[in-house]
Amino acid sequence: MATTQSRLRSATPDEQFQEVTRGMVDLHVEKEFRDRLRKAWDTGVPLRVKAGFDPTAPDLHLGHTVLLSRMRRFQQFGHTVIFLIGDFTGLIGDPTGRNATRPPLTRDQILANAETYKKQVFKVLDERETEVRFNSEWLGPMTFADVVRLASRYTVARMLERKDFAKRYEATTPISVHEFLYPLAQGYDSVALRCDVELGSSDQLFNLLVGRQLMPDYGLPAQTVLTGPILEGLDARLDPATGRIAGDKMSKSLGNYVGVAEPPEEQFGKLMSVTDDLMWRYYELLSERSTAEIAALRAGHPKAAKVALAKEIVERFHGAEAARRAEAHFEQVHARREVPADVVEKVLSLGGQPAMAIAALVADAGLAASRSEARRLVAQGGVTVNGERATDPTAALPAGEYLVKVGKRHFARVRLA
Amino acid sequence: MATTQSRLRSATPDEQFQEVTRGMVDLHVEKEFRDRLRKAWDTGVPLRVKAGFDPTAPDLHLGHTVLLSRMRRFQQFGHTVIFLIGDFTGLIGDPTGRNATRPPLTRDQILANAETYKKQVFKVLDERETEVRFNSEWLGPMTFADVVRLASRYTVARMLERKDFAKRYEATTPISVHEFLYPLAQGYDSVALRCDVELGSSDQLFNLLVGRQLMPDYGLPAQTVLTGPILEGLDARLDPATGRIAGDKMSKSLGNYVGVAEPPEEQFGKLMSVTDDLMWRYYELLSERSTAEIAALRAGHPKAAKVALAKEIVERFHGAEAARRAEAHFEQVHARREVPADVVEKVLSLGGQPAMAIAALVADAGLAASRSEARRLVAQGGVTVNGERATDPTAALPAGEYLVKVGKRHFARVRLA
Repeated sequence: MATTQSRLRSATPDEQFQEVTRGMVDLHVEKEFRDRLRKAWDTGVPLRVKAGFDPTAPDLHLGHTVLLSRMRRFQQFGHTVIFLIGDFTGLIGDPTGRNATRPPLTRDQILANAETYKKQVFKVLDERETEVRFNSEWLGPMTFADVVRLASRYTVARMLERKDFAKRYEATTPISVHEFLYPLAQGYDSVALRCDVELGSSDQLFNLLVGRQLMPDYGLPAQTVLTGPILEGLDARLDPATGRIAGDKMSKSLGNYVGVAEPPEEQFGKLMSVTDDLMWRYYELLSERSTAEIAALRAGHPKAAKVALAKEIVERFHGAEAARRAEAHFEQVHARREVPADVVEKVLSLGGQPAMAIAALVADAGLAASRSEARRLVAQGGVTVNGERATDPTAALPAGEYLVKVGKRHFARVRLA
Repeated sequence: MATTQSRLRSATPDEQFQEVTRGMVDLHVEKEFRDRLRKAWDTGVPLRVKAGFDPTAPDLHLGHTVLLSRMRRFQQFGHTVIFLIGDFTGLIGDPTGRNATRPPLTRDQILANAETYKKQVFKVLDERETEVRFNSEWLGPMTFADVVRLASRYTVARMLERKDFAKRYEATTPISVHEFLYPLAQGYDSVALRCDVELGSSDQLFNLLVGRQLMPDYGLPAQTVLTGPILEGLDARLDPATGRIAGDKMSKSLGNYVGVAEPPEEQFGKLMSVTDDLMWRYYELLSERSTAEIAALRAGHPKAAKVALAKEIVERFHGAEAARRAEAHFEQVHARREVPADVVEKVLSLGGQPAMAIAALVADAGLAASRSEARRLVAQGGVTVNGERATDPTAALPAGEYLVKVGKRHFARVRLA
């Protein structure tokens, strides 16, 4: 990776603005943020960009990586990215987006989760360029008096404006007083870390703005707040009425997710299953490709773009080789779907040899009149094996099962033993 | 003072109950409290009785001593009284009964106030028998995590039921989040001190009940809560419609107060100015006299009862000698008020002597036909000097001004030089 200085100059402030805000939901406030990017460009001092993670759900899916992908973009532009693990606030529990209080975790649970978390996160972020912090570092030593001073900066009425609090208060669902301390603690994280930018998901906007409000009270410039959408699940579709993607959020319990730890083939296949519209949405939010590159892909065939996205994402979590294998596997399975139900089945013997040349297999399976015809067919690109186009007639196939296709219509399922 | 054990046996549990609850407002709950008093009687283990004081107003008046007087009663019955100085909570500020947030104090202000406070308080309480504590002892070392655990015990909705919070929330007057921490901190004081009873003024009932509610969460029996009324000021009167005392609360700004640090004469005169009804109210709340003794006083002349009350209170703050002088001064001034505007003025010479006998003065002032008649008038109790009845005709008066009265009608103002 290039030096911070060269990365800070790798894209203009306007380009950086374009890339890091694309597809996002809230930006408080644009002018400040543009000024910050410009200043970093002018001075060579990178921005401090934080995102906080609550280590309660270490089994991540793509939905969790929207912010990580955006953090990665900041890293690529040379800014300092802070992966904040809310180990202290995990002791409090966060009711965001829920109607019931999240139970607090033990310290042991939190530390174990944090390790699992980091392993998955550094498949997206560059570990060497990431500042990993735990907020117990500054929240742990705070005394009651410190908490009082912090809590004096915010009013009960504003706290009750937070949507989930308002809803629960209205419904007389109990809100414990300690839940009011959570947004304050999270806001104080930005003070302690002297953040320039805080990233979060849009349902965290309230808490991020608390941090923005607190910072001037502690003599710091108010952070820029940038929130991302909740990623839609694999089954989401374009709503023609609104022209927007509509559907349930990606969630393990709904089954419409791609897990970070899932095998390459699973990830690839799931990503290939989405509609073209959703694919472009995923490009916008998850891909490291620039907006210009994505525009170029739009000019080509959607299938090629979908494969490219699936490969990019599988590669991120499992590496380039696994991505290639996953693609091959997909094509094989996909090709198999096109096979007629009454496909010819053949059993061929290796005759004690370790492998058989493709051309020999094609001829022996009865798909060509002779081995020489078979060689010609392969050389012309008319033969696929397990969905992959064969190019070398002498390529050797070991023992196994092969779906061989010649032209558009001729299939044989060959067991080579 | 007798030993704790003998004091614990100085009154039956029922008598103790009668004395310490008389004139009070709230008791949570009677049966528990009676059981506690009974148990202390049976086991010889005194109750732990706490009252918390916020060291923001060290210039005390009688209104502030209602609780101190009641604590004194507990002391007299052998119980352990804890004078808790809210030095820590003073850093938070308490909005009770106000619409605006009380500003926090500095530690130096609090410590200075606490010293002034103690000086005044130990005119009511027995210093040797009082446990003086500062809540910074246990609240100071509490961490953010401890505060979270404490705050998790109480809901926002219940907090907003507190009258002043409800009113301010309704009026959209800001309530800072830290104000919710104050009742919790005060409640935790009872946990730390393992209180059996907490005394407070009735406008503190909410906070005292928070302590009562928290204690079982910390494995302790819930404290008995006993609140006293806000003392009415000197200008309060019986409302014939309700049969109750009605009027503004005693307050320095309203001028209807008796200050603990005021001179004896001021205190005495102010107490003598109240209506008979208000006097009995003050007896109930401020006097150390038992209910039986007060009943006996009710059978006598109200003036005598009023003098007895004024003397008791002045004696408490300034000692017995000062109380006697204050009474004399009052009678003198009071007597002067009955003097006709056209009273005869006389100047008499001591003729080089250091003093003059009363009978001589009465005769020389023209209030008796002769010195022997004057002696007889004095002996019969028909003469007062400066409002005090003269009994010894030979009592010598030094140089000074004297208002001399013979019978009901005859006055002379005498300057003896």
